[in-house]
Amino acid sequence: MSLTVVGSIAFDAVSTPFGERERMLGGSAVHFSLAAGFFTEVRVVGPVGDDFTAKEMKVLEDRGVITDDIERVPGAETFFWKGHYEYDLNTAHTDDTRLNVFGNFQPKLSEASSAAETLFLANIQPDLQRQVRAQCQGARFAALDSMNLWIETARDSLLEAISEVDCVLINDAEIRQLTGQPNLARAARAVMEMGPKAVVAKQGEYGAALFTRDGFFALPGFPLEDVRDPTGAGDSFAGGFLGYLDGECDVVDEAALRRAMGFGTVLASFNVEEFGTERVARLTRDEVDSRMEALRSMTDFGRSPV
Amino acid sequence: MSLTVVGSIAFDAVSTPFGERERMLGGSAVHFSLAAGFFTEVRVVGPVGDDFTAKEMKVLEDRGVITDDIERVPGAETFFWKGHYEYDLNTAHTDDTRLNVFGNFQPKLSEASSAAETLFLANIQPDLQRQVRAQCQGARFAALDSMNLWIETARDSLLEAISEVDCVLINDAEIRQLTGQPNLARAARAVMEMGPKAVVAKQGEYGAALFTRDGFFALPGFPLEDVRDPTGAGDSFAGGFLGYLDGECDVVDEAALRRAMGFGTVLASFNVEEFGTERVARLTRDEVDSRMEALRSMTDFGRSPV
Repeated sequence: MSLTVVGSIAFDAVSTPFGERERMLGGSAVHFSLAAGFFTEVRVVGPVGDDFTAKEMKVLEDRGVITDDIERVPGAETFFWKGHYEYDLNTAHTDDTRLNVFGNFQPKLSEASSAAETLFLANIQPDLQRQVRAQCQGARFAALDSMNLWIETARDSLLEAISEVDCVLINDAEIRQLTGQPNLARAARAVMEMGPKAVVAKQGEYGAALFTRDGFFALPGFPLEDVRDPTGAGDSFAGGFLGYLDGECDVVDEAALRRAMGFGTVLASFNVEEFGTERVARLTRDEVDSRMEALRSMTDFGRSPV
Repeated sequence: MSLTVVGSIAFDAVSTPFGERERMLGGSAVHFSLAAGFFTEVRVVGPVGDDFTAKEMKVLEDRGVITDDIERVPGAETFFWKGHYEYDLNTAHTDDTRLNVFGNFQPKLSEASSAAETLFLANIQPDLQRQVRAQCQGARFAALDSMNLWIETARDSLLEAISEVDCVLINDAEIRQLTGQPNLARAARAVMEMGPKAVVAKQGEYGAALFTRDGFFALPGFPLEDVRDPTGAGDSFAGGFLGYLDGECDVVDEAALRRAMGFGTVLASFNVEEFGTERVARLTRDEVDSRMEALRSMTDFGRSPV
């Protein structure tokens, strides 16, 4: 199987109550790929500038991520995001965003990237998401993320993009905003009525909830005493979720989606333990599987009679 | 087994985006008892005024709740709370609180109430909680709830009260406020260091998390498309949780606590479907068990190999 992701490849400046970094590797496609790379062959599509060096590329390559479709734009700089968090780590405060190479990005997928069986359209302008979706028609499972900015400024395009995917992974506040429906169960149903068969509502430290046409499943965030930087948690979740579905599931059914929720939760939990990609870049599959087992036991009701 | 609860017995005026009631039966001890009454023999301790009639008493009696320790204060009025909710049903806005009979309340338990094996100190002034705790020394399992008001105005008493119980059930924002610890896992550990062996963090629509010395367990809120009035959800949760532990568990171990979390979740979910006690008052045990089964299947990871 194989998985293609389009999204940002970035340098991030982040400060939290637990530390700061002035310039570190980040971006939705990067966090996603480092997580998904544990499970399957991942191809990244996205632009970088002259300032993106072999050192950053190596972080992806060390996870086995295929970087052939990373487009280098001469004379331009890589996407840059600066933000901070207060003690409420659920809310990111953006201080600066420089689109740089993303300003004129026109995604053009190689044959290998177009042939992917799983596709993730990370949080970028929805017209770009649609261009990529159109180049990847054969995908067994396509998913997208989005954000309040696009709900407010590109709503029609976003609704079209949603109608073209199988799954939407989005923050719960944004699914309410998108649908104008304060009740999450109704909001999720409204999204499914647009086309997708699954909606994952990301809920920060509270975990994530999966809505399908026949079912509901939810997992808490993995309990951690040390959370240093939540940047990229949602993309790490998506990477664990879609990477597992692509690489280790013969069919995408309810049971597979639930296990995928588990791997998403696990990858997100490692991501937030340190800044940027620091923790996930040196993570091992054994650590992933062992935390997955811990999560299973934490959510086990027990089979003893009631 | 038997369970004693001390808390408010009230008339509530509530408005939400989905309707309003000018005066309905409410109060923490009432919501708790109607939930716990499915599982065990419940005795309510608390004061009421002349305005509390046989009609209100009958709601409790119909669930089998023993009302002998409800103290009628002549010439006084029953505790009254008025509040409203916006679309964010997680936040109650208080418009009026009249202590009335609660102003001079000195709890005095009958022999039968004192002999309870399980004790719940609902959210009242912590010195009153301690007076009741002192009269109920033989309880196998004692738990309390509290709120920001007491954290701010009676902190030392509250810390003493916490040190005297086995379990604290409290909103997650309040456990952070109580301990000054923004990380929930650390905050829960700080509470356990005061004495309790279990901490239940109530998280509104996100569900509830159970911290014990060796374990962690969490359940999402039961997904509902129609939530009309969240008043009393936390007390219904506590009623399901402690009622089940008291009435149907030979030992209070990790497995029992997890199942109790399930019954708490189920009772809270019925409570919020209609105003005040309306839904829970006509609820049946079959409905409880059937929703518990639904919750089990919603949280089942499946046993298939990863």
